[in-house]
Amino acid sequence: MFPISEYRRRVEAIQRGMNGAGIDVLLLTTAPDVQYVTGFLTRFWESPARPWFLLVPATGDPVAVIPAIGAELMARTWIRDIRTWESPDPRDDGVGLLDATLRDLLRPGGRLGLPMGAETHLRMPLADHARLLDLIAPIETMDATSIVHRVREVKSEAEVERIRATCRVADAAFARAPEFVVPGRPLHDVFRAFQVALLEEGADWVSYVAGAAGPDGYTDVISPAEARRLQRGDVLMLDTGAVRDGYFCDFDRNFAIGRASGAARRAYAALFEATDAALNGLRPGMRASDLHGVMARKLDAAGAVPAGGRFGHGLGLSLTEWPSLSSLDDTVLREGMVLTLEPGVVVAPGRIMVHEENLVLRDTGPELLSARAPAELPVLE
Amino acid sequence: MFPISEYRRRVEAIQRGMNGAGIDVLLLTTAPDVQYVTGFLTRFWESPARPWFLLVPATGDPVAVIPAIGAELMARTWIRDIRTWESPDPRDDGVGLLDATLRDLLRPGGRLGLPMGAETHLRMPLADHARLLDLIAPIETMDATSIVHRVREVKSEAEVERIRATCRVADAAFARAPEFVVPGRPLHDVFRAFQVALLEEGADWVSYVAGAAGPDGYTDVISPAEARRLQRGDVLMLDTGAVRDGYFCDFDRNFAIGRASGAARRAYAALFEATDAALNGLRPGMRASDLHGVMARKLDAAGAVPAGGRFGHGLGLSLTEWPSLSSLDDTVLREGMVLTLEPGVVVAPGRIMVHEENLVLRDTGPELLSARAPAELPVLE
Repeated sequence: MFPISEYRRRVEAIQRGMNGAGIDVLLLTTAPDVQYVTGFLTRFWESPARPWFLLVPATGDPVAVIPAIGAELMARTWIRDIRTWESPDPRDDGVGLLDATLRDLLRPGGRLGLPMGAETHLRMPLADHARLLDLIAPIETMDATSIVHRVREVKSEAEVERIRATCRVADAAFARAPEFVVPGRPLHDVFRAFQVALLEEGADWVSYVAGAAGPDGYTDVISPAEARRLQRGDVLMLDTGAVRDGYFCDFDRNFAIGRASGAARRAYAALFEATDAALNGLRPGMRASDLHGVMARKLDAAGAVPAGGRFGHGLGLSLTEWPSLSSLDDTVLREGMVLTLEPGVVVAPGRIMVHEENLVLRDTGPELLSARAPAELPVLE
Repeated sequence: MFPISEYRRRVEAIQRGMNGAGIDVLLLTTAPDVQYVTGFLTRFWESPARPWFLLVPATGDPVAVIPAIGAELMARTWIRDIRTWESPDPRDDGVGLLDATLRDLLRPGGRLGLPMGAETHLRMPLADHARLLDLIAPIETMDATSIVHRVREVKSEAEVERIRATCRVADAAFARAPEFVVPGRPLHDVFRAFQVALLEEGADWVSYVAGAAGPDGYTDVISPAEARRLQRGDVLMLDTGAVRDGYFCDFDRNFAIGRASGAARRAYAALFEATDAALNGLRPGMRASDLHGVMARKLDAAGAVPAGGRFGHGLGLSLTEWPSLSSLDDTVLREGMVLTLEPGVVVAPGRIMVHEENLVLRDTGPELLSARAPAELPVLE
């Protein structure tokens, strides 16, 4: 749990945004949003059976409206007003209690905010959402995405320290790659061994591992492991979102198996240099699209063909957060943001390579949270 | 990937339900629903940045409308019509393409089905959902929850075999508990070692671990691990949803540390006997509420106080699926359903114990998928 000062700061920052937008109560339903405000941390969100609600009023303390099974854990957070029902209940799975609680918090004619925009979803049944709107009518609903995003995207030092700690776990696990990245080993065993290394190095759990291997590069970056054995001439990419104290890291590493071809080495060098350019050029006040441009121009100068339109993103309580480092995202990059740099290139038709680092943006520029990848594609025998 | 016969069987079963309900196209947006129909398996759903859409027409082949980053992996499934856009796109994150695709599939005046009921949510931004409804107006939308649920809840033999394989992984990891459940060890290290054991025994990944320890029992069952050290007299519960080949197990085991008090042994015996009663009494055609009643009556006869209102649930592509073994759920239990039995009791004020097994329902009764827990609370030194 974070200290009460951090809790107060988070709630007040959201409430300032709500007051600015004329929102009287904010309804949050997803794991990272509820965790951000309350510190409520559980893997139980993996079960889709029950909805969870947090109501943040424009003034005063948030109220949790949650299944009784979570009351004990929520009581260990700073939230004091915890209202529960026995869920799942096919007659009424919390909507009546949510309505009653909203009546306590929301004046007639008041406005209810919900995140409705990009990278959000409503984690409750759509029919229950419709029923809630009927019950509270004529309350107006408003999109609260930017209120939540502008607060969550700037990390406190306590958050940066947690992300750094998770990055160190992944650094240590990647450093052990020579133990488990072995020619002839099936890729799914490599993935298992990598997850074991992450746990042994201090991950609480491993929410995300992806990667692939193929001659000089791979066909995509979101696949689970195949049974295919690592072969000499492959480039293997391992990408992880490990979690420690509720915060993610998200970066990858590439390894050549046995030997690295000229094409693979050139692709890696182009990615490394594009990342260096971003690390050298990034300053607060730039836009996400500007930072994308820095990397895109460097790849272009190296004669490399970019793979994918997004060269990085935010991270923290989720594996990926906004903004997107793409030509289309004009989000202003601010001090305290934690970002990935993730350029990708086409090595050969149908073969790509992706390189990723994690950083926190300081007033003077980026501070790496991941240990910088080696400047040359490492070859494992 | 499953064979094309299994794919055809799944699609046709859903289409029969759609035709019965007068739904012309079904829109699916969540990982388990999309995976069920297509076999598309990736941990990339962990990233909330991008929406994914699968459209199932009442006749003909499903169409995937997905971010370009997933095209390569989707092409390895049985889906042939794959339409992509570069996501995330702040101008239009797939809604226009979804609308255009719906126009191809949906006659004027047709009806669009979406899961809107219990245990569902819409995994796309609420504002994009509203925009889609505007674009396709006056198309009527209908709740398709029961269509999806009635098909997914009855598992094929191929699915049962996968769940059994995952249960065997957890059986093997629990059998190794004496290696890592040691008095004096911090609980978070026990959780890490348990996850390592699950991976070493063949889990592809571990999506869920929860548990707790305390004198004679624990305060809740959804907590992540604490730094607290295991103490003599504790009862430790470890609960896992490991994943292999895309299918979950979900069961727990209890261990007494050093010694087991009379109260702890009696609570365990009551849970074991209630589970035995369910295993002996369960037959197809019973309702979920009937099976809950079998366990509740047995606990009552033993003088035990039940903890929680749900004594089990479905499982498969998700850690938990419908139905709920509760007094309120009248779902008919059918041959081929995979269920957990999960009764809980109060050991002492604020202390509970929960016991869980996994089974598949056959025409003659249940077949255990987890190795039956020992009849007496195991004591680890």
